[in-house]
Amino acid sequence: MLTCVTEYNALSGRSLERVLVLVDGVFAIVMTLLVLDLRLPQAHAATSHELWSQLTDLAPQFGAYALSFSMLGTFWLAEHSLLGHMRTSDRTLAWTVLTFLFFVTTLPFTASVLADHTHLRLAVWIYWANLLMLGIALGWQLVHAARAELGDPAAPAVRLLWRRLLLAQTLYAAGALVTIISPVAGIIALAVCQLFFMISPRLPWAV
Amino acid sequence: MLTCVTEYNALSGRSLERVLVLVDGVFAIVMTLLVLDLRLPQAHAATSHELWSQLTDLAPQFGAYALSFSMLGTFWLAEHSLLGHMRTSDRTLAWTVLTFLFFVTTLPFTASVLADHTHLRLAVWIYWANLLMLGIALGWQLVHAARAELGDPAAPAVRLLWRRLLLAQTLYAAGALVTIISPVAGIIALAVCQLFFMISPRLPWAV
Amino acid sequence: MLTCVTEYNALSGRSLERVLVLVDGVFAIVMTLLVLDLRLPQAHAATSHELWSQLTDLAPQFGAYALSFSMLGTFWLAEHSLLGHMRTSDRTLAWTVLTFLFFVTTLPFTASVLADHTHLRLAVWIYWANLLMLGIALGWQLVHAARAELGDPAAPAVRLLWRRLLLAQTLYAAGALVTIISPVAGIIALAVCQLFFMISPRLPWAV
Amino acid sequence: MLTCVTEYNALSGRSLERVLVLVDGVFAIVMTLLVLDLRLPQAHAATSHELWSQLTDLAPQFGAYALSFSMLGTFWLAEHSLLGHMRTSDRTLAWTVLTFLFFVTTLPFTASVLADHTHLRLAVWIYWANLLMLGIALGWQLVHAARAELGDPAAPAVRLLWRRLLLAQTLYAAGALVTIISPVAGIIALAVCQLFFMISPRLPWAV
Repeated sequence: MLTCVTEYNALSGRSLERVLVLVDGVFAIVMTLLVLDLRLPQAHAATSHELWSQLTDLAPQFGAYALSFSMLGTFWLAEHSLLGHMRTSDRTLAWTVLTFLFFVTTLPFTASVLADHTHLRLAVWIYWANLLMLGIALGWQLVHAARAELGDPAAPAVRLLWRRLLLAQTLYAAGALVTIISPVAGIIALAVCQLFFMISPRLPWAV
Repeated sequence: MLTCVTEYNALSGRSLERVLVLVDGVFAIVMTLLVLDLRLPQAHAATSHELWSQLTDLAPQFGAYALSFSMLGTFWLAEHSLLGHMRTSDRTLAWTVLTFLFFVTTLPFTASVLADHTHLRLAVWIYWANLLMLGIALGWQLVHAARAELGDPAAPAVRLLWRRLLLAQTLYAAGALVTIISPVAGIIALAVCQLFFMISPRLPWAV
Repeated sequence: MLTCVTEYNALSGRSLERVLVLVDGVFAIVMTLLVLDLRLPQAHAATSHELWSQLTDLAPQFGAYALSFSMLGTFWLAEHSLLGHMRTSDRTLAWTVLTFLFFVTTLPFTASVLADHTHLRLAVWIYWANLLMLGIALGWQLVHAARAELGDPAAPAVRLLWRRLLLAQTLYAAGALVTIISPVAGIIALAVCQLFFMISPRLPWAV
Repeated sequence: MLTCVTEYNALSGRSLERVLVLVDGVFAIVMTLLVLDLRLPQAHAATSHELWSQLTDLAPQFGAYALSFSMLGTFWLAEHSLLGHMRTSDRTLAWTVLTFLFFVTTLPFTASVLADHTHLRLAVWIYWANLLMLGIALGWQLVHAARAELGDPAAPAVRLLWRRLLLAQTLYAAGALVTIISPVAGIIALAVCQLFFMISPRLPWAV
């Protein structure tokens, strides 16, 4: 029985292409599911003025939506930077990617918890815990890829990926710390971190 | 730290294939999510006559659905015409495409706002604002691709893509202007613009 | 202006690969969305017996689900048989495929109308009208592919695809006619047609 | 008429690539749809303490979610191990994969039945019946691939895939048997089986 499983492991999860398509599929769906939290009240607005006030009431939801969408963009780019320097896949890598995707799929839930409770520290910390789990899943992929020699040996990327990952997680943790002062300050800190990562390739000093 | 980010940028978002798969995934989901707004009332119809009147009550929703689906088709074709003449991708292009996809995912929301408030000018303008943001995101991709020399130099397409984009946005803006007369006239104007783009390849004078 | 649009048409919708990925994406989502109609009542069952009776109450929904899933499977295979013999794509083909996908996305709606009104002729006819529109969209693709010479000239498939399409639509239309006798008879007729298409490759007389 | 269908069958379902993309798409969506069952009560929590107790109330849902996600991961890997050793596809294989995908799409439903009725034997058995149908659909693919000689003859994988499939289904059936003692014991047994399959590639004795 054990031999059977061992041999099966040698066979399973080999195709990097299939892993990549699953990653793209899950991200595409999660990015789109976020929008389902944007819902006007059942009672239809009778005037443009009323509609406008209904829309402005949705501002926190829209903010959480935009923040989560850009977080997902960042992690999507990070995952592909990581998988892009692999030569091959194996069963363990497939499971580490599935773990990463699991925490991608929980992001719409933690984002909606945050959007509905912007005044609660716990809501910010749950959102941050989700980001932390995503970072841990990425780190696990790097550790395994190094140990199983899945990476392209010519690529000097691993050290770079590690530093970027630790930098991002340090900034997110700082944002979570700021939450002790006030939940709103924590959310703003996380949003500023996120903006830094999005804008960085466009800064004149070439960050 | 800054060097780390710079080097990471050089590594990230390189795969055009992954960007294309994400685009197709998001469009496929958004096109399908639109249908979730088509819902009969909870109380089941007892007769065919009653069912028919329930279905005809859904006509504005169905109209908004068909209009938004064909808008999505137009933008999907536009995005692939644009990405199709690129040789490569980079991190900034990936972010401009993600920005484009963000406004693709908001379309089911703005379309449902429009479907529920066909009598309000603001609803038409919010829908149009969504189309405008999609156009801006496409324009940003063209600007960046030219500056970063991502495009295929042999392709004479850039000028063509620009003219097409500006033509489309001018027509949409005209539709938004017509809304000043009446919201329904604005919706009809947008639908006529849309029909023009869909039918154009089939006109005898080869538009 | 017209020249611009003409030239743009020559550029747009060229990639068959992108069309194929969009088709697969839309089918994957629609197949999965169907299951959202399977919902137990809000009040949780206290005993296994009660749960069993709640589940058996869902039987019409489950039947409509299985029928629609296998319809989608049939049309997915039909669309890929059709696109599989194309050498290239163009803007018009992309729009005919988008039209086909539009009626794919309406299938969860017409299927839920059918599941909730199995006693109404109109519900069966609306479902059948959806199947007819899918057939017309497939026929339009064949007509355009022949006219624009998109197909592989070596492939003797076109005649075969036409005959298969007309056979399927004739059987569906017969099912719709049977509905005049009774709605349930019509549903059974459609299900029998569907079963014939699914089982045909496995019959001993090699149908 | 029969000849037409025969010839059509020879033409249809040939592209293994399309089948693989559909499989990835359906799995990506089902994995993400599972999260829709995670919903906080409508009334927003006023304090972090209240939010925490709302979140802990979701623990069974979260457990069912994590279990089902990892089940889906296992079956996704199994399906790709199976399809990965095929040289080609045919119409019957496409239908066996569609049957497999049908029972993949029912998993969010059976998982939510289980999450809402952890105290009922019937709920566990319905969940297990879903796993059994997935196993039967995989077995059917293996039987057909052997008969139609779709597999790569050089691959010694078929025997291995069979043994793995039977081992998994034996363990799941054992879990279903344990349910006779108590529903919760059955759920734990299924979770332990699942954990075994996930952890196996990482055990020091190389299982």
